Amino acid sequence: MDNFQFYSPTEFVFGKGTENEAGRYVKKHGGSNVLLHFGEGSAVKSGLLDRVKSSLEEQGITYTELGGVKPNPRDTLVYEGIELCRSKGIDFILAVGGGSVIDSAKAIAMGVPYDGDFWDFYCGKSPEAALPVATVLTIAAAGSEGSGDSVITKEEGGLKRGAGSDLIRPRFSIMDPELTCTLPAYQTACGATDIMAHVFERYFTNTTEVEITDRLCEAVLLTMIKETPRVIADPGNYQARANIMWAGTVAHTNIVGVGREQDWNSHGIEHELSALYDCAHGAGLAVIMPAWMEFVCSHNVLRMAQAAVRVWGCEMDFERPENTAREGIARFRRFLRSIGMPINFAELGAKEEDIPALVEKFGIGDGRTGGFVELSAEDIAKIYHIAANAQI
Amino acid sequence: MDNFQFYSPTEFVFGKGTENEAGRYVKKHGGSNVLLHFGEGSAVKSGLLDRVKSSLEEQGITYTELGGVKPNPRDTLVYEGIELCRSKGIDFILAVGGGSVIDSAKAIAMGVPYDGDFWDFYCGKSPEAALPVATVLTIAAAGSEGSGDSVITKEEGGLKRGAGSDLIRPRFSIMDPELTCTLPAYQTACGATDIMAHVFERYFTNTTEVEITDRLCEAVLLTMIKETPRVIADPGNYQARANIMWAGTVAHTNIVGVGREQDWNSHGIEHELSALYDCAHGAGLAVIMPAWMEFVCSHNVLRMAQAAVRVWGCEMDFERPENTAREGIARFRRFLRSIGMPINFAELGAKEEDIPALVEKFGIGDGRTGGFVELSAEDIAKIYHIAANAQI
Repeated sequence: MDNFQFYSPTEFVFGKGTENEAGRYVKKHGGSNVLLHFGEGSAVKSGLLDRVKSSLEEQGITYTELGGVKPNPRDTLVYEGIELCRSKGIDFILAVGGGSVIDSAKAIAMGVPYDGDFWDFYCGKSPEAALPVATVLTIAAAGSEGSGDSVITKEEGGLKRGAGSDLIRPRFSIMDPELTCTLPAYQTACGATDIMAHVFERYFTNTTEVEITDRLCEAVLLTMIKETPRVIADPGNYQARANIMWAGTVAHTNIVGVGREQDWNSHGIEHELSALYDCAHGAGLAVIMPAWMEFVCSHNVLRMAQAAVRVWGCEMDFERPENTAREGIARFRRFLRSIGMPINFAELGAKEEDIPALVEKFGIGDGRTGGFVELSAEDIAKIYHIAANAQI
Repeated sequence: MDNFQFYSPTEFVFGKGTENEAGRYVKKHGGSNVLLHFGEGSAVKSGLLDRVKSSLEEQGITYTELGGVKPNPRDTLVYEGIELCRSKGIDFILAVGGGSVIDSAKAIAMGVPYDGDFWDFYCGKSPEAALPVATVLTIAAAGSEGSGDSVITKEEGGLKRGAGSDLIRPRFSIMDPELTCTLPAYQTACGATDIMAHVFERYFTNTTEVEITDRLCEAVLLTMIKETPRVIADPGNYQARANIMWAGTVAHTNIVGVGREQDWNSHGIEHELSALYDCAHGAGLAVIMPAWMEFVCSHNVLRMAQAAVRVWGCEMDFERPENTAREGIARFRRFLRSIGMPINFAELGAKEEDIPALVEKFGIGDGRTGGFVELSAEDIAKIYHIAANAQI
């Protein structure tokens, strides 16, 4: 196990009706003049936004609205948000939505007190200050409600990049699983895939002696494997929604990933897909992640077999562990198919002939990107080709 | 799953040599004049205290020392600490030690800004303020480094009671597994038992649909079952120590126990043993917890069988699930014996004839204490009798 620092100061407020507490928690965490940030309308249509506004008003908290966040949130709205916060003297940002809204809020939060271009933080610079951010979560997926991460897409050129800092960890996150009961099956499955990917990116590591985090990762994955089919079959199943929602947070605060080298290449490789085709991130991951697993399988067959046995319930083939490892990947793909996810380029709406452009945009040139297996541009092209042609 | 609030704002700094960062983290978290609280000498003898002092001095932080905390920490030293903090204008308490030292520090922290008797907080009153507390942990056991709990024993009469508040969650906890490599096997095993008990107290619940926390609980238990025998056989095994140390924290921040009814009766029933005989809390739990499990087994045989199968690796007896459930308890006892823990009163140094006095002190009279199974005084006596006579 490697040395680590772990800090997750977010106050999680979980359960039915908790969105009505939003105002009280904003006040508790020092907010008085709020930017209410949201998406393209579902929070408005469902009446959620009105309930949140009422709870702010009850506490005498003023607010300014900024809606319109799109999936794969854009820098253009972030710039608008930063200006708005400055002109209105905003002291607290409340994101009402999913990962895209929260990530956009985090970008605005870093940008407001910064003299330069907020995009600097998405090119490796660390912020020194940020407005406090909090969330009312509406989909279990990105884990942004409990993380210090944010991913933004540059409108011009479609560059999708991430930033990270403890300063943008939400002060509180209100998580009412009931709000997710009306999500369409496809979006639900995309979220579930994202959650599982967050765990797998931590699971496949070269760090040895990490039993506690291995087991915690497996705990989240086993939960997702049990609960996701239940909500696909019965979207209104509150209990299954609740298990998935908490699993999604645990998956990404990093409590299951501390002290070990991680591998975020599947996320990076996927980002080029969602940037180019504007497809859902989770759907892209469903296509990329098993392809990546196939490509890296021989690097550490016993670790891949461990996942197959402990997560997918495969019988260990002690004479041919690679068979077990590959059976685990096959079960992952069958699982993804069963919850309605695409498993190849055609099903995603991607094109094999775009692979050179995707690799080009990934932008490592002659270099390599580190992780479980160091990847060259050629390796990444191979992974895209496996993904393009995957079948069950 | 029930509604819940979860808040764990402690910054964990984990790994080799991290104790040398103590001064830097005190400064980061706003401390300038520190009470350095420790135990009966091991932190002094090992040179740890000197290293911590140097790191404080390097940051220009002044400090006052208060050592002498005993296992099952006493109210008398807490009163002394409160007076000392007031007279010296202390603004931060740094506990260097295990659960006893940390719990004593938390009691002092609540007592300093309070006009009344700090013992009020151990009789149900909630504190409104507390000095900031942080820790340099020297044993994986109580989980106090990541919890908002504290247990103190009243010298007069031997009353052992707990207090809880988010205000006493440590600001930071420095956790260097190497510091635990010199711990004697018995103390190590006591700590491991305490960690496992913290999980089991959360695991046996009447709340349904809690797959995510069930799985997280199992993750911690499986880790303990794998790693504890390794450190008993090879105390200097850093990697196994590291896994146990992080498992001990995860076991007790409550991240594995949110949204579910918990049962802390084994802890309560044990407290009377360690208060009367001054035995190690973990050793008392080794005697009590399996006895409690036997007593409550028929209440929900399938939940007990789930633990047997998922945690202890028992084969499920689908015709006779109770056999599986009881086999799980038997394996728990064999595990405890294998790591050198007592499993009955004689091995602990307790006496069956004291049971009426123990029950009397538990103090529920004609009432009942809630949990997985509500217990009367008579039930508690039965559990003590099972514990008194347990055999493998």
